[in-house]
Formats: sequence, structure tokens, C-alpha cells
Amino acid sequence: MRQAGRSLPEYRALRKEGSILEAIKKPDISTEITLQPIRRYGVDAAILFSDIVVPVHAIGFGVEIEPGIGPVAADPFRSSDDLKRLRNLNPELDTPYVLDTIKGCIEELEIPLIGFAGGPFTVASYLIEGGPSRSYQKTKALMFSDRKLWDSLMERLTDITIQSLLSQVEAGVSAIQLFDSWAGSLSPSQYESFVFPYSQKVFDILGETGVPRIHFGVGTGELLSLMSDVGADVVGVDWRVPIDTARERIGSRKAVQGNLDPAILGGSWSSIESEIITIMKKIGGKPGHIFNLGHGVTPDVNPDVLLRVVELVHDFRLET
Amino acid sequence: MRQAGRSLPEYRALRKEGSILEAIKKPDISTEITLQPIRRYGVDAAILFSDIVVPVHAIGFGVEIEPGIGPVAADPFRSSDDLKRLRNLNPELDTPYVLDTIKGCIEELEIPLIGFAGGPFTVASYLIEGGPSRSYQKTKALMFSDRKLWDSLMERLTDITIQSLLSQVEAGVSAIQLFDSWAGSLSPSQYESFVFPYSQKVFDILGETGVPRIHFGVGTGELLSLMSDVGADVVGVDWRVPIDTARERIGSRKAVQGNLDPAILGGSWSSIESEIITIMKKIGGKPGHIFNLGHGVTPDVNPDVLLRVVELVHDFRLET
Repeated sequence: MRQAGRSLPEYRALRKEGSILEAIKKPDISTEITLQPIRRYGVDAAILFSDIVVPVHAIGFGVEIEPGIGPVAADPFRSSDDLKRLRNLNPELDTPYVLDTIKGCIEELEIPLIGFAGGPFTVASYLIEGGPSRSYQKTKALMFSDRKLWDSLMERLTDITIQSLLSQVEAGVSAIQLFDSWAGSLSPSQYESFVFPYSQKVFDILGETGVPRIHFGVGTGELLSLMSDVGADVVGVDWRVPIDTARERIGSRKAVQGNLDPAILGGSWSSIESEIITIMKKIGGKPGHIFNLGHGVTPDVNPDVLLRVVELVHDFRLET
Repeated sequence: MRQAGRSLPEYRALRKEGSILEAIKKPDISTEITLQPIRRYGVDAAILFSDIVVPVHAIGFGVEIEPGIGPVAADPFRSSDDLKRLRNLNPELDTPYVLDTIKGCIEELEIPLIGFAGGPFTVASYLIEGGPSRSYQKTKALMFSDRKLWDSLMERLTDITIQSLLSQVEAGVSAIQLFDSWAGSLSPSQYESFVFPYSQKVFDILGETGVPRIHFGVGTGELLSLMSDVGADVVGVDWRVPIDTARERIGSRKAVQGNLDPAILGGSWSSIESEIITIMKKIGGKPGHIFNLGHGVTPDVNPDVLLRVVELVHDFRLET
């Protein structure tokens, strides 16, 4: 469960009001935040406390994370001049804190640690839009007006993504996840033409390390077979697609991850339970299913509810 | 093309900085705004200038439209007490301006006028969230914690929706559209259980008037067959689903409307042209396709581009 710690009182006590990027830069704090939900929930893997804009922030593009808003670029990506702000990432020099956090977590953990990066498309959308968007209008205007500049931008971000992920694997993560969170804003043909080749390069090169590669986006129903073909070993889905439908689109040779709607965690336990059991029955006890939420945990979720979710999933046995 | 007028200089000159709800209350202004894009673009139908929150605003629930944000309820829907703020709509007394605008438009128009209302779910989401949302967390928490209150709220909104649409048909609109814009945030089972019965009642009762009934939402790929079965004659789709896939899910007995991505209208003409031709070819010149954008026109679109889109669609002939 990504961002599972966000709803914990011990997380808020540690983070206080400070910037999330500043917390990420402190390995002792980031290690503790990574471990907090593990102690509480007893989940089967940990996910690094970090953010998808950390690499572009670290090389000085000019991205900050505004509380309550998300990643914001005061001076968005507009022209080929802005490519100069996207130099290669030298993980040891630019993001040593990420590597130190990974090492600190691994020392403490008895379960796998998942590293991650943002998909080149999703990171590009923040740089171009200057912040979160509903329509991705500026991003698509760039795609559809200056293919060459789009390709140059995606090449830069692909390299940076690979550099970040490889360094995380070297530091010891057991799996990597590519969050192309907003890919679902694209039609299949847009995804195939403007995004697929770049994400494929990321998965290809990471494939050489041998670690499992997870791929995730929101609202990706029509993209699932492409997001599987691009090279992922596991494809995550939100709650919009029934998990058996998702499985068909992803193909039986890949694992599927999901797909409980996090927005229902404020509902009654009986309805949460019923939704979990529905997912488990739909996937039919077949191997290759990683139970997960369909998107991140929202800050106001009751930790006790999350604990019951984990326990129910762990205790679930399909009646045959 | 919904909200096609929003990008016009003559629209901005007329609307100025005032509240959109105040403009809707002035039939001379609303009539003119409805007609402006018809004069410019020569499209085949006009859509009433109004808003989906007009009925709940008119009965005094306490909803305003904040510029740059959208519908906002200062005192959101929380408990059964709030049902009192959702009395029946008396269209002649509560929204006479809507009916006067319809009559004014029909006098001038030589093409059909489409009336509309918000789907009960989408309107409910604004009342519960208090504004636009990404996660619909409060809405889903209500669904999944107090089924009885959810049903009462949906019953109230269903009645109000029907009252509004029937009055629009009586005033002379040639077709109606139900904008359940955010239904795509739901899984198929959530939609079927919490939304379908209410939208079905709207379509059933409107069916008695004999006017064509259009249904639309964003990101509804997995819901298309349900959104067709609910009683619509036409199902609109955004750009995320290829139109031939949408046609399959909707069924061959219904018309399909869509599905050009409005976000690409800032791209080069050659790529816009290519996307339009792809849609036209995919639907294969079959009857029952209403060419449209996959969502509303954004304010910064160049009107000359929209004019070229209309001309290209009108002039298109499938090579056989």
C-alpha cells in the first residue's frame, strides 16, 4: 500500500509541517517513515519513502512540492532551452540521501523493499503543466505540435529515470515500481506513440538487473495490455476495472496488483470486507495477484481500518 | 461541442467577470451565449447555456460556482437534516430564466436545441464534497456507510433532475443530455448499485416525452454498457476508449457520440486532422455516430481551429 504511512499519527508527529522534499533529504527521517507502516500493518513489502519528482528536483530543474497541491514548477518546461535544466542524474552526488535511506531500511527490514520512480510521461506532465492538471492540455499541445521537442524531453527524463532506478537497485531494493500515475489521461494510440518507447527503455534496462518490475497508473483500463507489453512483470490497476477483466487485458504471464478503492475506506467495515472478498473471489485464488489498494492511501484513513484490511487479506482462504 | 462558446472573444465580452450563475439568470444573455458558437461554427445542434448545478442552486441548497474552481457548497451535504435543503423544483417559479432562454433560442435557431441536467451522482458529489474532487472520498464514504441516506439523497436529486428536464422538454428542447460527468470515478459494481437505478428512472420518465436522450461521462470505459442499458439513446465517450471499442460496449442499437481529445486542439493542424480522420475511419462511416469532442472545449482553444474541425467533419467522405 503506497503512502500507507500518511494516515499515521507517528508520521504526522515526525513530518510536522515541514516540506516533504526536506524530509526525504534526511535519511534517518525517511527510513523511519518507510518503516512506520510496516510495524503497524505487517504488510508483505515496504515501499521507499520518497517522491517521483526527487530526481528532477535534485538536478535543479526547479520543482517543489506544495502542501495540499503537489509538485509545482514555477518556471515550466516550454522550449528546447529548458532541456539544459535536465542534465543527467548522478545518484551518488545528487540524491545520496535516497541511497542512504534504502540502506538504512534494508538493515531494519525482514521483508522486501520496493524502490520507485515516476514514469517519464507523468514527470514530463508536471514539468510542462507547472503543477497537477485535469486535462494535460499543455502536455498534449506539446506532443501534438513539436514531436522533436517532446522526444528530446522524454529522452532526457528516460535517462534520469533509469539512472535513479539503477542506483536504487545497486543500493539494495528488491523490486522497482514505475509510477506512470497519469498515463490514464492518454488514449491508447497517444500512449503507444508518445510514451511506450520511453517506458519500454526503462523496463528493458532495469530488466538486466533481474529485479521484478511493477508498473502502475490510474484510470488505465484501456492501456493495460500496452502497460504490460512495455516490459513490466507486474501491472497495477485502480478500482475502475474489475480485477478479472484487468487480468485478461494484462495477460496470464504477468502478475496483477490491486484493486481496492481507497475512497471506500471511510465506509462501514462490512462494506469494505465485502469489496475485499469480491476482489479475492474474482481473481479466483490464482497465483500472480498482489493485493493492494487501487491508488494511494489518503491522509484521513483510520489506521485501524487499514490493519483490518491487511489481516483480512492475510487470513483469506478461498472456499473450494 | 459543449461549452464551445467559452473560447470565443464575443463570449468573454458578454460574460465579462461576472458570475456564471448570474449570466444564466439573464435569458437575453444566455440566449446570445447559446447562439454565438452556432453562428461561428455551423454545428448541427445547439446546446443550452446553463450549468448542472442550476436546479440545486435555485432551490437554495447553497451552491455557487467559483471562477477557476467550479461548483462549491459552503455547507456540504452531511446528514439527513440536509435533505430539507433539497425540496422539489418548480421550474416555472425556480428557474423561469432557463425556460425563457430555451424559448428565446428556439425562436432564432434552425437546428435542434439540446437541453441538459447533471446526473444525480455527479450533482450529489458536488453537494457532498463541497467542491470538485479527485478521489470522491466523502461521496464514497457516504455510499459505503449509510446506504439509506445515500438512497434518500439520490431520490431527491433524481426527482429534481426529472423536474428540470421535463420542463426543458415542455419549453421546446429537441433532445436532452444527462451529464454524469464524474461517474467514471466509480467501479462498474459501484455504478450498478448506487447510481444505475436513479439514472434509469430519469431516462425512463424522459423516454415518455419521445425526445432523444444522450448520456455522457468522462473516463467511463468500463461503464459504457451500463450507461447504455440505463436507458440512453446516445452514449457519449471521451478519448480514452477507441470509438470502435466504445461502439462494441454500447451496442449497435444505440448511437455513439465522441471522441476527439479536446486537449490536442492546441497541437498542429496536421495532427488534429489525422486524429479526426482516425475516428471517422474507425467508426467506418456507419450510421449512429455523432462526431463530438470527448469533453468540453477549454477556454484557450483557438476558435479558428474549432471551425476547421467542424468543416473537416462536415466534408468528410469515407473512401470505399
